[in-house]
Amino acid sequence: MTVSECAAWLHARDNFIILTHRRPDGDTLGSAAALARSLTLAGKAAFVLANPETTERYLPFVEKHYAPDGFTPEHVLAVDIASSGMMPETEYAGCVSLAIDHHPSHEKYADEVLLDGKSASCGEIVFSVVKALGHIDAEIATALYIAVSTDTGCFSYENTTSGCLRAAAELVDLGAPSSDLNRMLFRSKTRGRIAVEGMVSTGMEFLFDDEAAIVTVTNEMLDRVGASIDDMENIAAFPVSIAGVRVGATIRQLKDGSCKVSVRSVPEVDSNAICARFGGGGHTSAAGFTSERSPAEVRELLIPVLGEFLGA
Amino acid sequence: MTVSECAAWLHARDNFIILTHRRPDGDTLGSAAALARSLTLAGKAAFVLANPETTERYLPFVEKHYAPDGFTPEHVLAVDIASSGMMPETEYAGCVSLAIDHHPSHEKYADEVLLDGKSASCGEIVFSVVKALGHIDAEIATALYIAVSTDTGCFSYENTTSGCLRAAAELVDLGAPSSDLNRMLFRSKTRGRIAVEGMVSTGMEFLFDDEAAIVTVTNEMLDRVGASIDDMENIAAFPVSIAGVRVGATIRQLKDGSCKVSVRSVPEVDSNAICARFGGGGHTSAAGFTSERSPAEVRELLIPVLGEFLGA
Repeated sequence: MTVSECAAWLHARDNFIILTHRRPDGDTLGSAAALARSLTLAGKAAFVLANPETTERYLPFVEKHYAPDGFTPEHVLAVDIASSGMMPETEYAGCVSLAIDHHPSHEKYADEVLLDGKSASCGEIVFSVVKALGHIDAEIATALYIAVSTDTGCFSYENTTSGCLRAAAELVDLGAPSSDLNRMLFRSKTRGRIAVEGMVSTGMEFLFDDEAAIVTVTNEMLDRVGASIDDMENIAAFPVSIAGVRVGATIRQLKDGSCKVSVRSVPEVDSNAICARFGGGGHTSAAGFTSERSPAEVRELLIPVLGEFLGA
Repeated sequence: MTVSECAAWLHARDNFIILTHRRPDGDTLGSAAALARSLTLAGKAAFVLANPETTERYLPFVEKHYAPDGFTPEHVLAVDIASSGMMPETEYAGCVSLAIDHHPSHEKYADEVLLDGKSASCGEIVFSVVKALGHIDAEIATALYIAVSTDTGCFSYENTTSGCLRAAAELVDLGAPSSDLNRMLFRSKTRGRIAVEGMVSTGMEFLFDDEAAIVTVTNEMLDRVGASIDDMENIAAFPVSIAGVRVGATIRQLKDGSCKVSVRSVPEVDSNAICARFGGGGHTSAAGFTSERSPAEVRELLIPVLGEFLGA
């Protein structure tokens, strides 16, 4: 599907519910809020399905688009959802009409797909869609700036393109308060966050001539420093930010004792392929998987795979 | 002077030496390297005066433009130098023909000045100049990307405008390897740097209902964690990155026992005015001063001024 076909498809229909992925980030939430608002301005009924895992910082931007009680959608949309495994728990998960996504590993679960695997963020694709829909305002620009900037680490990650920087410039001109947003998203750390970073720096394990770094964060560790789950956001980028580290893995214990593993790497090491070994996926430089095993067990299984991909 | 007047002025002359400011950052060095290269492509003799305080990371981009032995300049240029106090120690300091700068507090020390106080970086002004000169290539784009991105904290600081994001997009299209540069400049931390950040987080002092944060870094502290002066770059942004902090001051002891103080603030608190009290200056959100006093004495004098500007 092309952007204009997608806009025509949306124009021809009404009553939409928009799904965001599990452990939602700025890209999926910003994309959903922007799409809901643009469709609303186009005279449609369009809402975002409340995602219970939404962190505090994003709530003000997305909860105003939550569906009112009794709303019955005709069409289910999904933004930034790479696979059925990333679907939130909802009756709508099995009947997605249209998916808009930027993950090269996108698993075709929807009837229609607007996919651009070269786009740094789903927000950039949604930006094209809302422009084609013909309805855009400062609120949409704000939601999309959140999407684009968070998925590129404020334009610092490998995925940042000149197109992405131009999209950001356009969004600023359309009224996105980038200064306030950057401060909230990138330049403001809670004391809990600083404690988490200190803990992660101290507990990091270096392997394979210091080309791999692994860090484990357990519930007990979080409790000890008085940090919340919000303080953990994007901590996965931390190990690979150290000079010389080519692949970093962050093993995070979840409340039920299972693990979420995030892998980040330089472009020459394929995070997506590493995570595929464990049933996960994502992008070349950023991927993840979940496991029912304990952090210690996951670490044992992961180490030889990291070594293999480093050619060690 | 306008950009085109500046380009005409440069076109009409030859044999230039370009000065960078004390404790040179990416903006002054990138601007100087870009200007030297563009003038060289225009058939001029143009070199950068070697700045002994240049940190390792910037040397590869700037030292290739150093003046050869015996070069006698006819015209002295200065880039990103706000005041005579920021001049490097050189016989050329007193005879600057043309200054290109973006500091609103610019002190008119040169015969001709191209000043744009609204520009986030000096690099953006130099970008306009090299375009007007008609000579630009990937090497120039690289130097200017360093200038623009470092002065905006990779497009995250208050000063980042849509024009700045568009300039960055253009520079990427002109061949600046933004992915490698971002990794080196923003996403790569040495173990020494991580140690410095840990030390700074631990030693931070919060005042005035936690709206002010002060941190002191002595030579002894740096030695203890095995960190170098390179590991300190931009550490001044650290205190004000903590949620709720409106003004942060970093007091850094220099080798001779004197102090360099960097003040960073939210836009509502005037860092420039705070530093002006101590004979320094800069921008509203980022300014600095030096003092012959000890770190402890500077701290004592600074605290009431911070309180005053916070209305505390």
